[in-house]
Amino acid sequence: MSIEIHTDEYYMRQALAEARLAYEAGEVPVGAVVVSQGRIIARAHNLTERLNDVSAHAEMQALTAAAHFIGGKYLTRCTLYVSLEPCMMCAGALHWAQLSRLVFGAFDPRKGFSTWDKPLLHPKTEWEGGIMEEESAALLRDFFAERRKD
Amino acid sequence: MSIEIHTDEYYMRQALAEARLAYEAGEVPVGAVVVSQGRIIARAHNLTERLNDVSAHAEMQALTAAAHFIGGKYLTRCTLYVSLEPCMMCAGALHWAQLSRLVFGAFDPRKGFSTWDKPLLHPKTEWEGGIMEEESAALLRDFFAERRKD
Repeated sequence: MSIEIHTDEYYMRQALAEARLAYEAGEVPVGAVVVSQGRIIARAHNLTERLNDVSAHAEMQALTAAAHFIGGKYLTRCTLYVSLEPCMMCAGALHWAQLSRLVFGAFDPRKGFSTWDKPLLHPKTEWEGGIMEEESAALLRDFFAERRKD
Repeated sequence: MSIEIHTDEYYMRQALAEARLAYEAGEVPVGAVVVSQGRIIARAHNLTERLNDVSAHAEMQALTAAAHFIGGKYLTRCTLYVSLEPCMMCAGALHWAQLSRLVFGAFDPRKGFSTWDKPLLHPKTEWEGGIMEEESAALLRDFFAERRKD
């Protein structure tokens, strides 16, 4: 039996800290952490600009890092915390990884996975959105407002 | 103006050659090439086992390699040939890359992107399936039949 010593908000704050690192690097500010048995086993943020790669979303980096840590491809006993609702690509990757639980901050009404009727996540993946939603959304709003000024 | 000197079948044969490399390496045999102005700028095959990473599909590798070749994130003037219909994850990645054209071999009635009602590909992406379908499907069938014998 694993003991959850921290709340979802605690881990989401860690994901937000990653999102802030993305912000400072000029990347769309989205961050993620992967938690296994109460322990953070991967931290990542969006790197699409630095890596010049549209697939370098926070979730993709976190998933790959967590798989390397575990030494196996499947995240069947892991929770992924991410500051923004995963897109269709990331949801597809989390599907293949058979992630056990997903917690996200802000909803994404345009590209968020929950806007597709046929589910994109694995049927075994539990998910919850809206955790520290306002902080996550504010970071994105500030980022794009600043960009428009340039 | 670009001159297309080869047919779709020609490039699909190149994607199938990549799929065969995957087969020989014990990977689910799917291969892809990216073509820009008649020239192959990236070749890749599925590497999920070798990289221990569920996101290492042929399309993801090909997309990243093509972006590196181009020196930009967007594949707006490229065609991706892949032996199997892309899944939701790969279609999402091709969406973000704004791929101009997608050609695939075998249809995937379970996880193929075309089985979702709300489109997964970018609205500007033209696509066509069923090119050398039988060869692509046969390779996958043989692979799984051999595995069941083990």
